Amino acid sequence: MTRLVAQVTISNLGAALFHAAGAPPAYAQLVVDHLVESSLMGHDSHGVLRIPEYLDDVARGRIDPAAKVRIERKSSTTAIVDGGDTFGAVVARTAIDEAIRTAHEQRTACLILRRCHHVGRLGAFVERAARNDLIALATCNSPVQGHFVLPWGGREGRLATNPIAYAVPTLAEPIVADFSTSVAPEGKIRFRRNEGKPLPRGWLLDSEGRPTTDAAALYATPRGGILPLGGAAGHKGFALGLLVEIFGAALAGHATDEASVIGNGVVFIVIDPAAFVPLAEFKRLVSDTVAYVKSSPPAVGFDEVLVPGELEFRTLRRRSREGVPVDDVTWTSIEEHARRLGVEMIANLDD
Amino acid sequence: MTRLVAQVTISNLGAALFHAAGAPPAYAQLVVDHLVESSLMGHDSHGVLRIPEYLDDVARGRIDPAAKVRIERKSSTTAIVDGGDTFGAVVARTAIDEAIRTAHEQRTACLILRRCHHVGRLGAFVERAARNDLIALATCNSPVQGHFVLPWGGREGRLATNPIAYAVPTLAEPIVADFSTSVAPEGKIRFRRNEGKPLPRGWLLDSEGRPTTDAAALYATPRGGILPLGGAAGHKGFALGLLVEIFGAALAGHATDEASVIGNGVVFIVIDPAAFVPLAEFKRLVSDTVAYVKSSPPAVGFDEVLVPGELEFRTLRRRSREGVPVDDVTWTSIEEHARRLGVEMIANLDD
Repeated sequence: MTRLVAQVTISNLGAALFHAAGAPPAYAQLVVDHLVESSLMGHDSHGVLRIPEYLDDVARGRIDPAAKVRIERKSSTTAIVDGGDTFGAVVARTAIDEAIRTAHEQRTACLILRRCHHVGRLGAFVERAARNDLIALATCNSPVQGHFVLPWGGREGRLATNPIAYAVPTLAEPIVADFSTSVAPEGKIRFRRNEGKPLPRGWLLDSEGRPTTDAAALYATPRGGILPLGGAAGHKGFALGLLVEIFGAALAGHATDEASVIGNGVVFIVIDPAAFVPLAEFKRLVSDTVAYVKSSPPAVGFDEVLVPGELEFRTLRRRSREGVPVDDVTWTSIEEHARRLGVEMIANLDD
Repeated sequence: MTRLVAQVTISNLGAALFHAAGAPPAYAQLVVDHLVESSLMGHDSHGVLRIPEYLDDVARGRIDPAAKVRIERKSSTTAIVDGGDTFGAVVARTAIDEAIRTAHEQRTACLILRRCHHVGRLGAFVERAARNDLIALATCNSPVQGHFVLPWGGREGRLATNPIAYAVPTLAEPIVADFSTSVAPEGKIRFRRNEGKPLPRGWLLDSEGRPTTDAAALYATPRGGILPLGGAAGHKGFALGLLVEIFGAALAGHATDEASVIGNGVVFIVIDPAAFVPLAEFKRLVSDTVAYVKSSPPAVGFDEVLVPGELEFRTLRRRSREGVPVDDVTWTSIEEHARRLGVEMIANLDD
């Protein structure tokens, strides 16, 4: 079962839990706000179900809940942001704000994040840059344990699902794209396996490198692998995933197969469009482009053309009224953490 | 029929033709070298078949063969490169060299190109940056006449095939990726139509927005459209194509559906990896990543895992020995231009 919890309720509860677990109030609020916003936008896999997961990782010592984020400036346009293994959303927020300042001053900026735990929804950070009138790109790799994605032509996983995000300001909501460079995220395949349902063709190869629709093949020994984005043009998705990997690993000074690395390797590239065209004109032109692509009549099976982020902003408006969906497993786990940490389940009042 | 012509022969002949058509010797040599290299690397669609096409465009006044390229610096890290409608390869070479200088000084750079004719093989320019120890990204849009690619969920073309290229230095050859953000380039579909062969499923929708394998549907009235990269995840290819469009149009200060624009809208983003990690260490780590992805045994139907650019460098070595393939239509057209311009067909001596 999934219950709907008021945004303010889950937000206050989550903040109290993270604070009780050792996070300073500002960290606690920032992390829970990030997760709640992801849920509100429909990205449940990066939403409130991560509250107990992060609390577990604090308890296991994988997250330092109060570590200071340090910005090691390397040049006028670049910096390395060392997160000290605190919450990824705290590290990424610090980094994107520094990137925004740098891009406003220098017109371009490139920042890399190190010792950053799970970064959360990458789109949130590029969106923040776009709301500050900048174009932002972000990439995010994951360590070797998450190498579920096949290189094009190969049958053993060598990359993670390595998402790319970008955001661009318009006269209205920004364009916000955020997608994996594999044909599907690992979580979707796990979900199908748990349901006992076959996968669409073109998602998976088994350990022998043969196409399969059996989701269990990904978890067999030896395991299969997820195909890169692109179907018959999967070399393109592989090329994108490889770039994300190089940004996340080599730029951060470690190897792709380094087993000791924990957390995401994130890069932000931020560009000030006002370096090229007056800002108001740029936004008007992008809004015109949005209107132009949306003016295409729909293909069979579609109602309309949506630009990246449009569906998420609709979901945000709806769920902000209706409440945040929280599944039973997550809710029970939150209750257990609340008991452990001595936090009152104020949310029960809403049920 | 296709003949093999020695590299030096087609290079000298092409340079003489462009020079006779009004290009300064340096422009003439740069353009032909770019096209010959594309052919040598196996990108015949961006190779010597463009020699007569460019000569036609000079004759029709669409290329100014001697226009000066002007760099309008807008900030320490950005510039607008105004090509004055001369050969795209000349504009892009000037721009990438400026981007390389800027990135070596400022660590990051973002340059946009305007009034740039057909830019040619985008990969050539990012490769040049990688050979100068930099990471480079490039995007390239095309004007409204080339809007063959459907927005995700739509049935009328709203974008061109909008390629993305990147290059990264390694201890050996750089990684060089260069691919369209549609499922296939338009030229491939035209080729299938001319052959009367059906397309693979998932390439095309007809004008009613229904899947079709009939290549002719793209050229019917009203016309069909090419699907964005990604198959069932085509929203990802659409997101990439839209970003390329915004970079190519809005940053250059014009609308996506502006009918008066000719030529490609190109952006270069260049980053100095030495801002983050010592250069030798970075190259070693990238080479290790290449070795790691290539260590995957092959999937069924493949011999090995290739990283982006690897196949092209192999083809370059082979064709440098064997000669440049030139099809009969192109050769005849070159002969006609030679007669018109009074250039001796020295290449005949080789036949």
